[in-house]
Amino acid sequence: MTVRISHQPEIQLFFEQAAGYDNDQGSPRVKQILLRVLQDTAKLIEDLEVTDDEFWSTIDYLNRLGSRSEAALLIAGLGVEHFLDMLNDAKDAEVGLVGGTPRTIEGPLYVAGAPLSHGEARMDDGSEEGVATPFFIQGQVLDLDGKPIAGATVDLWQADSKGNYSYFDKSQSDYNLRRRIVTDADGRYRARSIVPSGYGCDPQGPTQECLNLLGRHGQRPAHIHYFISAPGYRHLTTQINLSGDKYLWDDFAYATRDGLIGDVSFIEDPALAAARGVAGRFAELSFNFQLQKADDTTDEKRSLRPRALQE
Amino acid sequence: MTVRISHQPEIQLFFEQAAGYDNDQGSPRVKQILLRVLQDTAKLIEDLEVTDDEFWSTIDYLNRLGSRSEAALLIAGLGVEHFLDMLNDAKDAEVGLVGGTPRTIEGPLYVAGAPLSHGEARMDDGSEEGVATPFFIQGQVLDLDGKPIAGATVDLWQADSKGNYSYFDKSQSDYNLRRRIVTDADGRYRARSIVPSGYGCDPQGPTQECLNLLGRHGQRPAHIHYFISAPGYRHLTTQINLSGDKYLWDDFAYATRDGLIGDVSFIEDPALAAARGVAGRFAELSFNFQLQKADDTTDEKRSLRPRALQE
Repeated sequence: MTVRISHQPEIQLFFEQAAGYDNDQGSPRVKQILLRVLQDTAKLIEDLEVTDDEFWSTIDYLNRLGSRSEAALLIAGLGVEHFLDMLNDAKDAEVGLVGGTPRTIEGPLYVAGAPLSHGEARMDDGSEEGVATPFFIQGQVLDLDGKPIAGATVDLWQADSKGNYSYFDKSQSDYNLRRRIVTDADGRYRARSIVPSGYGCDPQGPTQECLNLLGRHGQRPAHIHYFISAPGYRHLTTQINLSGDKYLWDDFAYATRDGLIGDVSFIEDPALAAARGVAGRFAELSFNFQLQKADDTTDEKRSLRPRALQE
Repeated sequence: MTVRISHQPEIQLFFEQAAGYDNDQGSPRVKQILLRVLQDTAKLIEDLEVTDDEFWSTIDYLNRLGSRSEAALLIAGLGVEHFLDMLNDAKDAEVGLVGGTPRTIEGPLYVAGAPLSHGEARMDDGSEEGVATPFFIQGQVLDLDGKPIAGATVDLWQADSKGNYSYFDKSQSDYNLRRRIVTDADGRYRARSIVPSGYGCDPQGPTQECLNLLGRHGQRPAHIHYFISAPGYRHLTTQINLSGDKYLWDDFAYATRDGLIGDVSFIEDPALAAARGVAGRFAELSFNFQLQKADDTTDEKRSLRPRALQE
């Protein structure tokens, strides 16, 4: 028999007290959200008859999750970050904001302040030469009519050939594979990089521990993250997921979307390699982005999500 | 206008997929709980129109909370640990398990494996002599008929005169103010200790940060924690909260309950002090516990909550 008390007026009053409803200090918004969290948590515990042992192992898990800074990784793996994208799509559609390159999840591995250049950049520090495949990425930033946007900032970041990201992987140089490129008069950006590998959750980490309990893997296809911004246009957070990866449509973080698949060409021709200034096999990718017009300057900016090295 | 998508069949299917419902690996119970968490989270985000900035600052908060191992402290401060006590009381009442000393919250500061002695123990290491007030605690462990239970284990822990707990406060000696005392033939335990101060959350910690946003303090009255166990009886997790403390009925963790107030006597008589082997003012407290009969051996044990130095 399921015992329930959380609907009782004295228990509801207790939650209101715990959420600070009986004082006029603090933040009314935080109180509102926390009261709802308390009500939902109590009802969940009752409905599913959560045992004390289950409850405390969850609290212990939250400590271990935070101690490894994996809360955002878990939330991506549980699909909540993708849900926010779908919800934002629905909000946009409601007010007629449609068209352009789809948004998709940012993920937890952005680092602010990458080197800025105009038109083009080399993204890798050369430390994987002979190991990784050279990768030439280029494209245009366009408006919804297909007209080039000059002076747009293409802020892109990617993993190395082992699937690791600089800053979080301390063996890499600062800002390796992270660059900001301002588009030229044709709205064009060009980057020389290396072909990234897909990212996998740390097998020993709390996110993978949770995914194991859900019978799920923690792998992502190879991909490149983008923030794209330009005065007068809505900020775009998105990713290009690379064709041919076995996890392309089996991404543990659900970031792959129609319209965001990058067709990578691998080229073996020595003459073309020489023209590119590399030796041996290399890869090419062309990808254009289309931005929606911004209604106000707030729309031009990314979310205030806390990020590494943010000023 | 509030935009909602989480009720849509394709979104519900997405949450089921994220919770691992489309595979037969992992834990069905974890899948069940996580699916509910996903559904509740999505509905909360929609109902309260949680912004991206609010969402990501919450995720960042969870990382900071866990990195300081404060998840259990926060959950006590939000009243959820007390809610579990009230729910367990209701479950007990439903099956006629009534009477005896009330349960109350364990809190996050227990350390397993404290020194074990018979009948009596000195709990403090003497390092606060001349600073703290000597404190003589004694009482009996009884059954519901008032008959003494010999051989019960009284596992008690408390803060020092600054409100800090050994193990977590590295300036204290190992197991300072933590002891396990086995009751004598009369069911009696005796402890020489020091009068504890109330506990306060770290003013710089994430729990106090949340409490500030709720307009709440993070203080507890002076108290002594107890685990009491004996073969044939239900394990009891409780606390004695000390009379006269300004936070006695304003405990941020809601642990104070009727039936758990300890009346402390402060004694200034030099002759009585000499008889106790101390100089100057000292304090006394007598507190008896009454245990319910256990239905099975599982009831004799505390929860499997992860604890410090647990084997």
